[in-house]
Amino acid sequence: HGVRFVGPNIYGVYYTPAHMSAAFTTPYDVQGSVALASQSGGIGMGILGFSRSTNMGVSSIVGLGNKADIDEDDLLTFFEQDENTECVALHMEDLKDGRSFVEVAQRVSKKKPIVVLKAGATPAGAKAAASHTAALAGDDKVYDDILRQAGVVRARSLQELLQFARCLPMIPTPKGENVVIITGAGGSGVLLSDACYLNGLQLMEMPDDLNAAFMQYIPPFGAAGNPVDITGGEPPETYRKTIALGLEDERIHSLILGYWHTIITPPMTFAEVVSDVVEEYRGKGIEKPIVASLAGDVQVEEASNYLFERGIPAYPYSTETMVEVLGAKYRWARMAGLLNGANG
Amino acid sequence: HGVRFVGPNIYGVYYTPAHMSAAFTTPYDVQGSVALASQSGGIGMGILGFSRSTNMGVSSIVGLGNKADIDEDDLLTFFEQDENTECVALHMEDLKDGRSFVEVAQRVSKKKPIVVLKAGATPAGAKAAASHTAALAGDDKVYDDILRQAGVVRARSLQELLQFARCLPMIPTPKGENVVIITGAGGSGVLLSDACYLNGLQLMEMPDDLNAAFMQYIPPFGAAGNPVDITGGEPPETYRKTIALGLEDERIHSLILGYWHTIITPPMTFAEVVSDVVEEYRGKGIEKPIVASLAGDVQVEEASNYLFERGIPAYPYSTETMVEVLGAKYRWARMAGLLNGANG
Repeated sequence: HGVRFVGPNIYGVYYTPAHMSAAFTTPYDVQGSVALASQSGGIGMGILGFSRSTNMGVSSIVGLGNKADIDEDDLLTFFEQDENTECVALHMEDLKDGRSFVEVAQRVSKKKPIVVLKAGATPAGAKAAASHTAALAGDDKVYDDILRQAGVVRARSLQELLQFARCLPMIPTPKGENVVIITGAGGSGVLLSDACYLNGLQLMEMPDDLNAAFMQYIPPFGAAGNPVDITGGEPPETYRKTIALGLEDERIHSLILGYWHTIITPPMTFAEVVSDVVEEYRGKGIEKPIVASLAGDVQVEEASNYLFERGIPAYPYSTETMVEVLGAKYRWARMAGLLNGANG
Repeated sequence: HGVRFVGPNIYGVYYTPAHMSAAFTTPYDVQGSVALASQSGGIGMGILGFSRSTNMGVSSIVGLGNKADIDEDDLLTFFEQDENTECVALHMEDLKDGRSFVEVAQRVSKKKPIVVLKAGATPAGAKAAASHTAALAGDDKVYDDILRQAGVVRARSLQELLQFARCLPMIPTPKGENVVIITGAGGSGVLLSDACYLNGLQLMEMPDDLNAAFMQYIPPFGAAGNPVDITGGEPPETYRKTIALGLEDERIHSLILGYWHTIITPPMTFAEVVSDVVEEYRGKGIEKPIVASLAGDVQVEEASNYLFERGIPAYPYSTETMVEVLGAKYRWARMAGLLNGANG
């Protein structure tokens, strides 16, 4: 009768635009633009809990299970034309047909980022997968080739899959490779620079005039260059002016902020200043990727949430997660052919 | 006059056993057995916020800054004989004297784990460090050699440094290499197996008698082997019996638990069952490393905290963090010469 079905061996399907919760797990209805699918109920429950905890907007959560009929190709074909979906995140243990996946994913990933966590990527994991879903997890080199050809962004862990799913729809597509770090904590600047290198992000070589432009807002013992180190005792105005400069100058394509908790610029003040200036430039039609690392006492958690709610990925006690998500957006933009080279 | 000093350019020093808070940052007094030091105020504030948020017990938090006098060697020499300290975590941008560090750290790390996050480990980070503390971050290969010779556990990110600091004093030293995964979620079992492989942990080859012993508690469609997949619909008793077997059998040296949220075994029930059985075996003098991955809705966060408070590292929405901390404990135990080989 031409009826299609998902499963067997799944937790169900959520599709928030239609308020559909056809699952035996708890309901979820925070609408957003990411679709998540998993081959396992455990990972599905993890997706659900993480989504609720972070208030992540989703278009859909799908249990794929043993894929007797509907598989990843079908899902991608659906989400390709689904106006409510801007990003697809997949947990997979195997692919029935690698060639067909590459064909569909190559087309879809040009329009929407596809993130994949391939379980069973190691010999130990592959053995466990064979016992779990009878998946032929196969040689990871083969999967790596398939996934690279398909143009998908590979996540290295469940947390990466979830954080990428949360952030990719939020981060605007960068116009070029030039990343600038603006930090009130020199030590964070060093670790953020390390993270840029490790995630394939290119710190802009600062032209002299731009250096001079930053230096006019920074104490003489601060450092321009890149990271721009505004130093630790600065008022909100210094964050505001340097971020505005970073958004204004066309040679800068993305900003990474390193905040240091002080009495002069408390966490929520920082969060408000950043949100305001980003909103101001959005109003002028200027949108650039901007992410933040917050080093400080526990109030930085509230400040990070405030920033996230306003479309700025921000993490407390980390100098790497925000760089990983920015790096994922860049990997996708490069594969989709949307980026010029450095200084482009 | 022989007076020693820390700094310049630091946030201060906390030493909780003496209720000392000689810092200009906010006070902290949750006593515990880890000492943390950083060369940067930003990272120091991150340590403080993370400690408060996770209620991490510390013996000391030290700002090292530009190290005109007291440096890492002095700190290690102090913490070596400090009864209140069982683990030392260091964020460093440079070492003034690598040879001297190796000499001291080799001795101390035989007794207490030393965790190091080396900032400026990449070309981009090294450049930023030179501009921050004038540190000669140097060739990372040289540092890698120094740190390996010194017997320290290297953290790859700020989050790793913090999670290792939080967990290493909590995890008992394993007696051997045989790790067993017990999971209610097959999908988590696959990702946990991947994480074991990536973190140098060895999944035990299950002897037939032990396989049979596990199978008597598991439905016929479950899988023994390793991961032991108890399947997703099991009552608390099945978790209890299989964990007890894992603690009881001398051939098993460490346990990784994968929990899947169900109505039959809700998150807090799981947490209580695990805590009870671990406590029961502690009472018999049996202590093994045991860590948990909780896949489920938001109640798994409370359950994870409950487990942490009882000495069991547990993380929601992750299948990798608990394996990384267990891997760190193993790396230390191997370097300190405390481990026999597999099946030892």
